[in-house]
Amino acid sequence: MPELNQAILLRRRPVGAPTAEDFQYVETPMPEPAEGQVLVRARFLSLDPYMRGRMSDAKSYSAPVALGAVMEGQTVGEVVASRATGFAAGDTVLGGYGWQKYSVVAPERLRHVAPGEVPLSQNLGLLGMPGLTAWVGLEDIGTPRKGETMVVSAASGAVGQVVGQLGKIIGCRVVGIAGGAEKCAFVENELGFDRCLDHRGDLNRQLDDACPEGIDVYWENVGGAVQAAVWPRLRDFGRMVMCGMVAQYNEAPGADATGAPPGPNLGPVVRKRLRVQGFIVSDTGWGRYPQFRTEMLGHIASGRMRAREDIVHGLANAPAAFMGMLNGKNFGKLVIAIE
Amino acid sequence: MPELNQAILLRRRPVGAPTAEDFQYVETPMPEPAEGQVLVRARFLSLDPYMRGRMSDAKSYSAPVALGAVMEGQTVGEVVASRATGFAAGDTVLGGYGWQKYSVVAPERLRHVAPGEVPLSQNLGLLGMPGLTAWVGLEDIGTPRKGETMVVSAASGAVGQVVGQLGKIIGCRVVGIAGGAEKCAFVENELGFDRCLDHRGDLNRQLDDACPEGIDVYWENVGGAVQAAVWPRLRDFGRMVMCGMVAQYNEAPGADATGAPPGPNLGPVVRKRLRVQGFIVSDTGWGRYPQFRTEMLGHIASGRMRAREDIVHGLANAPAAFMGMLNGKNFGKLVIAIE
Repeated sequence: MPELNQAILLRRRPVGAPTAEDFQYVETPMPEPAEGQVLVRARFLSLDPYMRGRMSDAKSYSAPVALGAVMEGQTVGEVVASRATGFAAGDTVLGGYGWQKYSVVAPERLRHVAPGEVPLSQNLGLLGMPGLTAWVGLEDIGTPRKGETMVVSAASGAVGQVVGQLGKIIGCRVVGIAGGAEKCAFVENELGFDRCLDHRGDLNRQLDDACPEGIDVYWENVGGAVQAAVWPRLRDFGRMVMCGMVAQYNEAPGADATGAPPGPNLGPVVRKRLRVQGFIVSDTGWGRYPQFRTEMLGHIASGRMRAREDIVHGLANAPAAFMGMLNGKNFGKLVIAIE
Repeated sequence: MPELNQAILLRRRPVGAPTAEDFQYVETPMPEPAEGQVLVRARFLSLDPYMRGRMSDAKSYSAPVALGAVMEGQTVGEVVASRATGFAAGDTVLGGYGWQKYSVVAPERLRHVAPGEVPLSQNLGLLGMPGLTAWVGLEDIGTPRKGETMVVSAASGAVGQVVGQLGKIIGCRVVGIAGGAEKCAFVENELGFDRCLDHRGDLNRQLDDACPEGIDVYWENVGGAVQAAVWPRLRDFGRMVMCGMVAQYNEAPGADATGAPPGPNLGPVVRKRLRVQGFIVSDTGWGRYPQFRTEMLGHIASGRMRAREDIVHGLANAPAAFMGMLNGKNFGKLVIAIE
């Protein structure tokens, strides 16, 4: 009997926090590559907060996943069969599609990665979309300079880890914010941030202590109470890099729809000449991937860039792992090992 | 008997809207220039919303006016006596200081202006700080492109007039927002904006009608309800140039102090990749004044840049005129003619 594919479908659109019933695990016939296509066997699937947006049909920067379709996601693995030039069976590739074991993709979506250069799964984290997100957001918006104070929310997460370590390499004083003593200890001791504050404690008091001169660059990953605590502490000419607001992803259909919680009064934007800017890495990021990868490999080689991954085994466990991530239950970059 | 100087002092710090008792009109002995100084006789004094900030001792980008000191402001007039190289009696100059008839200033604060090139008072508006503010904010933050939709609040005001006309010169569709039918008619008919909406009407409905595709550039001069109406209509990659929030200048001591009204939820900043940025023209603007002046004189000569001024006669009337401006009672760039 031929092998079956494994996939997670979007069964229905969640209202508020996703639940197990919003997903469906299925086994389906193996996909076949058409002329010009490549069949990829995924070894690791990246799970990321942006996927919550794809589950909703609220207006967004990208189309939602259709009901009954495979959940969107990026994988790293190897080519099983290729009917496209440039790829051959056995090649290690980044860019397989979806929460599934096998996918058929167009070659322009795929990138060769050198096997063994880093642990394979790190191509989804440090060297994948989250790492690229950190690098692009700092290059284009955060523009940290030596001696400045940078605050990074979700500091132990896939993006926050890289943001803060890049800040240290540049020579910033870097203060992370994370949830719980274990994550904070990791951020300080393993990632080398100057401080890591626990948002479960009194964040205002901790920020007063850790950033007495204020904050030059704030990497915004979470929104909500953390944003409210950081906002009044931004310094003149401060930059707020808006990468995500995961604390609010399970709220109202669209963040500006009626019922979304209010944000900060924008008066300080004038007075302090703040720059508050959002970005989506897919807009311009992948065109700069080669430069990013070269720089990051250099940092990894010199020991100045580390990663922690939270590897969950088995595709069937992806929905539960994803739901946990939206509540901060992951510890490090969340990836699914597909057996 | 020698002539006396006339001046308006800050008598006390206003709580909320300024009142007549916060100011004091005085006649004082003529100031004398020391070596290296210039004595200037003001013909026109510029009144601008930023001055409300200088009356308060809340933390700001600039020091407050001391109690009992002359209110801060810029004048245009002529040199009466000079003990500094580069300036001589009779020179027409921009940069006299304060709400007063005569001031003694350092030569580096002064600029020669060619008499008769434009009506003298326009050196405080089109060719002064407000015009420069418009030009710098569009150059650095708004970056309007041909075919984009620009919305300008306080459209008939000193800055808004110039912003919208520059937008038209670039080839934008320009929609102003002003208070009342008379101002709106002026903005459409005299300044040539495509539309002007009356914020006293249903602004949401009017914006739906005037900007069905959304807004690429929003020039924020006012805050409050106008900001709330514009915010959800910003398009992907929209820019919000934060020049001021005059609707809120009379509110709580600092815009981020407890009690300041909340602002918009920032979720759309990520989703739409918005850029929200404030600036203060004095940071970098005056260094670019020559280029600005050359360009503006070209626009004026070609008939594409007009100005409306609201000229109030007599220094003693400055406080009332200023208080009216904070309530939108002026119609055009407010200047005081000093007799």
